[in-house]
Amino acid sequence: MGDFMTKTLAINAGSSTLKWKLFSMPEETVIASGLVDRLNLPESVFTVKRPGHDKYKDVQDNITYDLAAALVLSYLKDAGIVHHLHEITGIGHRVVGGGETFKDSMLIDATVLDQIRALTQYAPLHNPIQATYIEIFEKLLPNAQQVAVFDTSLYADMPKMNYLYPIPYKYYEEFGARKYGAHGTSHRYVAHRLAELLNRDLADLKLITLHLGSGSSITAFDHGQVIDTSMGFTPLAGVMMGTRSGDVDASLVAFLTEKLGITSQEMIDILNEKSGLLGISELSPDQRDLEDTQNSRPLSKLALDMFANRVIRYIGSYVAEMGGLDALVFTAGSGENGIAMRQKIADQLTYFGVKLDPDKNNVRGVEQEISQTGAPVDVWVVPTNEELMIARDVARLTK
Amino acid sequence: MGDFMTKTLAINAGSSTLKWKLFSMPEETVIASGLVDRLNLPESVFTVKRPGHDKYKDVQDNITYDLAAALVLSYLKDAGIVHHLHEITGIGHRVVGGGETFKDSMLIDATVLDQIRALTQYAPLHNPIQATYIEIFEKLLPNAQQVAVFDTSLYADMPKMNYLYPIPYKYYEEFGARKYGAHGTSHRYVAHRLAELLNRDLADLKLITLHLGSGSSITAFDHGQVIDTSMGFTPLAGVMMGTRSGDVDASLVAFLTEKLGITSQEMIDILNEKSGLLGISELSPDQRDLEDTQNSRPLSKLALDMFANRVIRYIGSYVAEMGGLDALVFTAGSGENGIAMRQKIADQLTYFGVKLDPDKNNVRGVEQEISQTGAPVDVWVVPTNEELMIARDVARLTK
Repeated sequence: MGDFMTKTLAINAGSSTLKWKLFSMPEETVIASGLVDRLNLPESVFTVKRPGHDKYKDVQDNITYDLAAALVLSYLKDAGIVHHLHEITGIGHRVVGGGETFKDSMLIDATVLDQIRALTQYAPLHNPIQATYIEIFEKLLPNAQQVAVFDTSLYADMPKMNYLYPIPYKYYEEFGARKYGAHGTSHRYVAHRLAELLNRDLADLKLITLHLGSGSSITAFDHGQVIDTSMGFTPLAGVMMGTRSGDVDASLVAFLTEKLGITSQEMIDILNEKSGLLGISELSPDQRDLEDTQNSRPLSKLALDMFANRVIRYIGSYVAEMGGLDALVFTAGSGENGIAMRQKIADQLTYFGVKLDPDKNNVRGVEQEISQTGAPVDVWVVPTNEELMIARDVARLTK
Repeated sequence: MGDFMTKTLAINAGSSTLKWKLFSMPEETVIASGLVDRLNLPESVFTVKRPGHDKYKDVQDNITYDLAAALVLSYLKDAGIVHHLHEITGIGHRVVGGGETFKDSMLIDATVLDQIRALTQYAPLHNPIQATYIEIFEKLLPNAQQVAVFDTSLYADMPKMNYLYPIPYKYYEEFGARKYGAHGTSHRYVAHRLAELLNRDLADLKLITLHLGSGSSITAFDHGQVIDTSMGFTPLAGVMMGTRSGDVDASLVAFLTEKLGITSQEMIDILNEKSGLLGISELSPDQRDLEDTQNSRPLSKLALDMFANRVIRYIGSYVAEMGGLDALVFTAGSGENGIAMRQKIADQLTYFGVKLDPDKNNVRGVEQEISQTGAPVDVWVVPTNEELMIARDVARLTK
């Protein structure tokens, strides 16, 4: 078998972005990667990166999901990255909501696809889009095996006292009302990668992983076992995010629904799309915009303060649950690039033994220890690599 | 002026109980106190305690709110505790929801009463009942001055980043959507009392007060300033309680509302009345019932584990916000009497310097240090005395 038989495409689809990486497996080398951004918007951007090549960039208006997938494949062929599309034997898809149905990644068939759609209630912003891409690639590459890699499977075995809500128990049994978490693939990657970087066993660490992006979540690994995570029944819960509220009083939601004269679903949409940093700042969901304006706009500063505060609260609660803290990892957009935000968060955690080195912390998007030498807690930036985790799961499940 | 001019009645009314205490002020001595329990239920219980007297107890079916108040006053007169009802010159009422309207306790007039009713949305289980008692006592004792003492005023000056929710900012401006907290009178009492007991200034302490009863809340006093509390827009939020859920994912609430085919308000009622310890255990909202059955009923044990876990999470988040912890106080029904629950919570907090002494902890309902001598965190049981705080506020505002 030649090396053309080992190509695996990892797909990480969001509502307005299609991220992909083509791996040669089992070597885990990246052949090419790309991003289609601003989908279904004016000036969609199609970019590709290849080792040893200049970045390729093209701008077209209103690239749809179908077109985005087709453009990726035709680019791979036209640029000679693959000679035949059937060299791509495996495709792995990030899927946010796996409910209690999927406790591990899963080879996709029609039943699995239906189940992913049926789980939309657990991840309304993600599952329908991710199911759509599975169908699109099924048509474009009918001979490739597809695997769904769920953000939630990492959390399947959390302690029951942590994943249950204090509501009538029968709602868990009848409707699957529990905490499912999200971003599991990212947390799984950075947790294992950190253990490698520290040259320690994950099973020896009390570790908190901070995935801080437009969606943010925090996960506690207590000696290798995931014990808690900030996202809940859906990815709406937990810390404040770019446009998502995170935790709110349920009575407040009912109250506002009535005051505004809107439906519950419209209210949930507001909590998902118009809240968080955007809602408080009245400016932007992007921390960079808020940092640029925080001296002149009190609401920009308030939004940043609130974000840091909500992260700090979760870290404290997980330190309490684990009875200590050995390491912290920052990942995802703001986690990897938000120098000031990392410092702001860490400054509140000195009691737990977190001491950043401002010089080491002055980095973006690279693997680096950022804590002071000898500080009790090892703090690192580890760029996430969900696509590699996905490719690994494809390899494992399509053998 | 004779001493008959200085009697103040403190009223702490809940949905099924009327607690009262008659004080001689400004000496702060308790002349008599009582409880009317199981209101509007078969076998309502009317009890009175007086220094130097046996406890008085009477059982009648279905004592209403009106009758309860009348029975208290007629008992006081019949027993010779007061010669004339007009000796009672001040009445203070605990009111749960003060919104942003009341930043301090307030002398009651018709406007204030209307405002308390208008704030029902912030405390649907309490404000209507408390307003009803204000009216009842206005009729029974028209010459007494009445004062409302709000559970929420303690939280008026929390940092804005803590009391705001990460939702569109205009909802705070237009509808008062913010965290109001509750049980403020209780937290205020035990915090000040602890400082006295420790012979320290509250302004020197990082203190967490745990009001654990059928409703539970946790408050952080950072050097005398209240910085955060677990209850939210309403007393539904925060830790798990007897029948209340505490924090849940807002999307889960919308999801269950739809699944169950009920209204948002019906769902909120379930979260208030059928959730918490009762919902998980499927047995009882009372920790004593769950402790008695935890060896034979897994759901009883699960409910207790979840309760302790939610308390621990909040403590951790407040330790993070304050950057340390000097003292913890347990109060209210379970806090004062739940020996096993205090131990269960404390056992998870050794990392923060909490070390209980099991012998000292073997107490119910008395002021006592329960931490080991020399432990970094001072842990105490301090029975709450909301009524005394109420009487003090009556004295202050009716001078």
